[in-house]
This record gives sequence, structure tokens and C-alpha cells, in this order.
Amino acid sequence: MAKVAPRTLSGFMELLPAAQIKMEKMMETLRRSYSVYGFTPLDTPVIESAEVLLAKGGGETEKQIYRFSKGDSDLALRFDLTVPLAKYVAANYSNLSFPFRRYQIGKVYRGERAQRGRFREFYQADIDIIGDGKLDIINEAEIPAIIYRTFSELGLKKFKIKVNNRKLLNGFYRLAGMSEKAADIMRCVDKLDKIGPIEVRRLLMDELHMFSHKADDVMDFMAISGTNAEVLAGLERYRGMDELFDEGLEEIRTVIKYLSDFGVPEENFVVDLSIARGLDYYTGTVYETEMTEHPEIGSICSGGRYDDLAGYYTDKVLPGVGISIGLTRLFYVLNEQGMLSDETVSAPADALVIPMTEELGSAISAATVLRDAGVRTQLYCEKKKFKAKMSYADKLSIPYVVLIGEDEIAEGVVAVKDMLSGRQQKLSPAAAAEFIKKNMDERALAAVIKE
Amino acid sequence: MAKVAPRTLSGFMELLPAAQIKMEKMMETLRRSYSVYGFTPLDTPVIESAEVLLAKGGGETEKQIYRFSKGDSDLALRFDLTVPLAKYVAANYSNLSFPFRRYQIGKVYRGERAQRGRFREFYQADIDIIGDGKLDIINEAEIPAIIYRTFSELGLKKFKIKVNNRKLLNGFYRLAGMSEKAADIMRCVDKLDKIGPIEVRRLLMDELHMFSHKADDVMDFMAISGTNAEVLAGLERYRGMDELFDEGLEEIRTVIKYLSDFGVPEENFVVDLSIARGLDYYTGTVYETEMTEHPEIGSICSGGRYDDLAGYYTDKVLPGVGISIGLTRLFYVLNEQGMLSDETVSAPADALVIPMTEELGSAISAATVLRDAGVRTQLYCEKKKFKAKMSYADKLSIPYVVLIGEDEIAEGVVAVKDMLSGRQQKLSPAAAAEFIKKNMDERALAAVIKE
Repeated sequence: MAKVAPRTLSGFMELLPAAQIKMEKMMETLRRSYSVYGFTPLDTPVIESAEVLLAKGGGETEKQIYRFSKGDSDLALRFDLTVPLAKYVAANYSNLSFPFRRYQIGKVYRGERAQRGRFREFYQADIDIIGDGKLDIINEAEIPAIIYRTFSELGLKKFKIKVNNRKLLNGFYRLAGMSEKAADIMRCVDKLDKIGPIEVRRLLMDELHMFSHKADDVMDFMAISGTNAEVLAGLERYRGMDELFDEGLEEIRTVIKYLSDFGVPEENFVVDLSIARGLDYYTGTVYETEMTEHPEIGSICSGGRYDDLAGYYTDKVLPGVGISIGLTRLFYVLNEQGMLSDETVSAPADALVIPMTEELGSAISAATVLRDAGVRTQLYCEKKKFKAKMSYADKLSIPYVVLIGEDEIAEGVVAVKDMLSGRQQKLSPAAAAEFIKKNMDERALAAVIKE
Repeated sequence: MAKVAPRTLSGFMELLPAAQIKMEKMMETLRRSYSVYGFTPLDTPVIESAEVLLAKGGGETEKQIYRFSKGDSDLALRFDLTVPLAKYVAANYSNLSFPFRRYQIGKVYRGERAQRGRFREFYQADIDIIGDGKLDIINEAEIPAIIYRTFSELGLKKFKIKVNNRKLLNGFYRLAGMSEKAADIMRCVDKLDKIGPIEVRRLLMDELHMFSHKADDVMDFMAISGTNAEVLAGLERYRGMDELFDEGLEEIRTVIKYLSDFGVPEENFVVDLSIARGLDYYTGTVYETEMTEHPEIGSICSGGRYDDLAGYYTDKVLPGVGISIGLTRLFYVLNEQGMLSDETVSAPADALVIPMTEELGSAISAATVLRDAGVRTQLYCEKKKFKAKMSYADKLSIPYVVLIGEDEIAEGVVAVKDMLSGRQQKLSPAAAAEFIKKNMDERALAAVIKE
């Protein structure tokens, strides 16, 4: 029979079991963390009508989208989780209670040029809080608190949530008479981290043809930094000249105050006036999250406040605030950096039960006792040599082997071998279950990321 | 601005939050149950190369498949989880340890004609055990044990796992000299449940042109029923005439014996000689699962033993056994039948914290204490009347409201209101967290299905 080569498309992540278990643990941590803040899970279709998905229109998105026909239908695969959320909220408006807080962890599709570390199918893990007509500023402080808890529970320590406010920026550019050029300026300023202030200033003058004193105004503003208190003091100097700026200043002051109430340490949080987020629709607080020792990776969690989630579907005004983690890319990067903890259990089972007799009744009973106690148990009954069976447990890093021979059957016990220490002890099946469960529960506390 | 109607495609399930939470709980139960048997989670791409996905070739599948081009690539969406598994095992053969036990819960796509209760995008929840060259018969007994535990944990009580063996069938048809017609006969016999034995006998004679005594032979065989012991006794009468039949008889005898070792009650398990499973590739034990009070729904969990998982990709002989639950359809049917339990928590949060003062510090701290204890907590700070806030908790069925006014702040307590009983008590934030967590943990024990 002619064979077809069993290949996986490039740009599509497919993990071996041990890595997949770590990925599952990351997703489980995200689900738990998002749930604890009262977000409801959502699951929208991967395929939508192209008309619905592209209602907002254009740009890069349209080029990258997977779009195709089936029968008479013009279909497309979702390229993010925000447009499906907008559709969902607009369509189910009367059945939802606002603020509507949802999380969604799901695959999205972008036909980008394939290159290492770039994915065409990837998970996004999003949270959004949607208001009906209005939404209190406290939600803009709660979002970084959620980011902080989520990354902390994943085991990440060295990260900084960078916060800015679009009203501050738009207000500043207006009072500096640079409103028309604001978008271009923000694009240049966005490179501050990469190329430094001297080069950014040069770009402003050479490419945007700004006078040097205007470029200096921008650079002076962007140079405001330090502790939160110092940044706020620096911003105070611009107060009273532009209404929008003043509004932004009040907002960022409020966000900073609440953040400390939420218990986010100042070392994980910084006001950074250079971040703007490309998307037009952010209107208030914006966020980026940087791994402090790996700034080259870029933001691992971004988002912000917007005033109009679903204007292309409905007349209802639906302001919101949300963030997104590019989970597939984050996992890829952590793996590349060797930052996935070896302490995380990566075995498919906690215990491998190996019967040493022809009669399997006792082994089956013991496995059932273990499983009833929640121990992930595999029964190994293939006809192989003992050495091969132990090597199977070893290869899969299964932490405990449970041996059941004639002696054990006669005594009503099982022999539990700790594969790491080599230590072996005889226990009743119930005691073995308790012993293994307790040890595995302790191991389950290990965070998936080590830093 | 012209609006696009925010619609979801027909044949694509999209649930409101309360229902989605129940669906999530079903998936969580499946993940836990499958994990406890030592299956490793797998996540393969939704998009594959069409050549890879259709390697096995044709039939109904090819008509229903979502297939499209992107650039030069001929792509398709997976229509089941078995072909991707075959690809995965063939591609990663040297990196896997056998038996390879995996579960996968994922969306698959079939462009069927849309009708009520039929889905074009639906979840399958599969488990398979793949051997390298051979695979012990005990795995064929463990599979129904897993089905039994899984459905029991979901809360289902009235179900029967029907088991048959293809070797018994093929052996019988051979010894009866009906091998060429076997497939057609099985198709007729498959209707036994629906149209009864008289009509099936008529079909065999009218449509397959069988002599009446031959049809009687078939009907006699299919009439073997009763307890497991009675069925085995009935089958004994055919022993010694066909090697394949005898092999099948030994296998089903072994499976029945082990099943009782695994603790599966006889009331949830029956040998049913009329089931065959359409797919050609099953070669040994086959399974169907019927809700005994809803036979009209058909099988909710099916599968079987096969000898050659991935012959179209590799020369390696990879026998296996597996089952699949059509999760989206099962959820739809349970919902239609009113079988989803109201006791399952369907609220996005366990507690709604409502600050009654302008100053939010105490409310934020209390919310943090609750969240640290694992209580799913929403902080409600929108500027609304008190009545509107309580009505929000009510609409979302949030079980506890935590009120924090000036008195509570002064006393260092919070007022916890049980929304069901109306009872209100003052507790320290830590005590409130413990109280709510304990109650919610108890409620979490409720199975998602009530029967």
C-alpha cells in the first residue's frame, strides 16, 4: 500500500506528550486564575461567516485570514477572540447581565509567513469586562491585578506590567499641537526600548520632519519615569492645559491607587508613557507585560480600555477593558528559554501497576482502589519482560510503580516502588493510594514556570 | 454606520453563559476521568494538509469535509480525532512509548446538512490505547470500565454498554456460508432495535434474497440474549466449527470476566450480538452505549478494537482500541431532555462583593482574601442603585453577596448574604472566605446530569 507521509503543517504547534502536559497545566492555571475573578468561560465557533468576521474591515487582518467557501457560504476562521466576543455580546445583549465578564481560551488562525516561533494556529487566552453604556475605572485597575496573579501562579517572577493611558497621550499631543501626527509619533516612540532616545529623536526629525524643539517636547514627555509617585509628579507639570490630558491623569492616578489596594507590588508594575498599543480602538488605560530579563520577547500580555466594542454590529454602546495572552507563543518561548520547570509532573500517570502473576484480579482491584482515590493509574499487562515494563515506567517518568506478585497477593498488599529514590515498601492498596496521592498533590503545587 | 447582523452560523453550537458553565463541567469531568486511567492529553491542529487527512480515502467523509486552499496549500479541517491520532503516532513513533494511551477532546468539522440537533462543528472526546505490534485483550475490558466510570461521574445512571465482537460475527457468517453477504446482513441486523425481528427477517429475505432457513439461522444467532452467562452458554453451541468464531468467543469471555474484576455492574453492561459498528476497520470487541430510557437517541459512546491504526502512513503495525463520545450532541440531547442538573453551579462567581461606601479599599481587600482562598469573586463597583446590584447577583444566580458598608469597615467584618435562604451574617473576611469555599466545594460535588 502506498504511504502518505504523516506530516504536520508548518506554523502549527503539535507537542509530544510530556510537553503537552505542561501546556495543559498552563491552560488549567489560566482557567483557574480567570475563574477566581468571576469571569465566565465562553466558547465561540472557530468558523464564522466571513461577512460577520470582517465587519470591522480590513488591513493586515484581511490578508492573513483563512477564508473559503462551503456550498453557498463565504466562511472564515476567527483570527482573534475579540471580534467573536463583539458578535456574541451584540447578538445576546438582552440575555446577558452587565458588566459581562468573560474569558476565552481558544485557537485562532492567521496565515502569516511561516518562520521559527511564528504560528498560524495559536491559542489566545483573553479576558474582557464589558459594560452597558459605561464601565467604572476600577475595572482598569483590576485587570493588571489579574495579570499579576495569573503570571505569579504560573511561576513567573521577573515581569513588569507596563501601564499607560491613551487620554494622557492624546491630550499631550493635542496640547503640543501635534494631533495630526500623533499616530506617526507613537509609532516612532514605540521603538524607544529597541533603539534608544537619541535614535527616536532623530526619527521624529528626519522622518516626521518635526522641528527640534517639538521633538524635544516629545522626548521630554517620554523621559518622565521613575517610581509611580515620581511619574505622577512629572505628569503634574502638564496639568490644566488640556481637558483630555487631565482626565487621563486622574484615571492613571486612580488606577495606581487601586493597584496597591489590590496588592500588586510596585516592582511588577510601572507607568510607561511610551506604550500606546497599535490598535485604534483603545481609548483609556493600555497594558503591556514584559519579562524583565527577556525584553527581546516583547509583550506577553497586552490590552486596554476601549469605548466601543461592537459598533459594527449594534447601536448599543459597549465600553470594555480586556487583555490577551498569546499562549502558544508564550509556551514556545518559555520552552526555548528552558524556563519550563522539570518539577512539573509530565508523566501521563502517577502510578504504573504491574501484575507479576497470570491472574490479574488483584492487580485490577488495586488499580481501581488507586483510581478511586484520584491517583492517575495505568495498568500494564502487556506480555513483556519485567525489565521492559520497568523501562516503560522510566521512559514516561511515571513516579511510582506498584508491583503485585504472589507474595503480595497472599499478604493482601502491594509493593510500591518510588522510581526516583528506588525505595520500595509494602502497603495495603488503600494505604498505597493515600501515600501516592499525598505525594502527587504536593508535586502538583510546583509552578509550571521556573525562574 | 451600517451594521452587520451579528449572527452565528447554523450547525454551530454557541451557548449562553449558564449553559456553557455546565458544558465546561462536563469537559472537566471527562478530562479527570480519562486522566485517572493514565491517558495523556493530546492536542493536534484543526487544520491539516488535505492529502494527509484524506490518506485513508473517501466515502462520505470526502463529501462532508471542509477543504480549501491557502497560497499553494491544499488544506482541510479535521473531521474526526482518529486520523490525526494515526498521523501523530506514525510521525512520532520513535518518540512514543507503547502502549500509547491518549485522550483528546477537540472540535471536529463535518459539513452535514443543517438540521435540528445536527452540528457541523462539534466536540469529540476520544480515548485510544495503541500497541506496537500487539496489544493485550485486557485493554478491551478496561475501555468499558472507563466508559462506566465516566458516565457515572457525569451523573448518568440508566445506561447500558453494549459489547460485541467482530470475530464472533465474521466467524459465524463464515461458518454459515454467508461471508460475502456479511456486510449487508449486518446492515439489516443493525435495525433490530428499531423495526424488530420479524421485519429484519423479511428484509433479509426480500432485499438480500436469502433462503428462509438461512434467514432463520441469522435470527436464531441474534436471538441469543439474557445475562452474560446465558449469552455465553448460547454461543457455546457454535463452538468448534470456525477458528475465528472460537477466538472471538474466548475474547468476549475474557472481556466479561475482567469487566467484573473492574467492578462494572452487570446492569450497565450487556453482550448484544446485533451491534457491529459500521466502520470496516474494527476487528475485535466493539462497543455502543445506550441511555436505557432514551434508546431513540442512539449510541452516546462507541468504538472498538482495530488491528491497523495507521497503515496508510506507516508500515508499523499499530493495533488499538478506543472509544469516542460525541460531546456536543450529547450535551444538546441532555439539555433537550431536561437532564442537566439545576444543582450544578451555573454562576460565573461564587460571591459578589458590593462596597457600600465611596472608599473601595476594604472591599478590594475582602475580594482579595476571598480570591486567595479560591472563592470565585466578582467585585461590583458600578455606579448603580443598591437594588440593581442585588438584582445583578440574582440574575446570574451568584450564591453569595458580600456587603461592605461603614459599619462593617469599622468592625473589620463583612456581611455575607446567602441569596437562596436570604440569611445574612457578619464574618471576618477570612471566615467568610472559608464559609463560602466550604459550601461551594460541597455544591461542586453535584453531578452535571440528573437522572
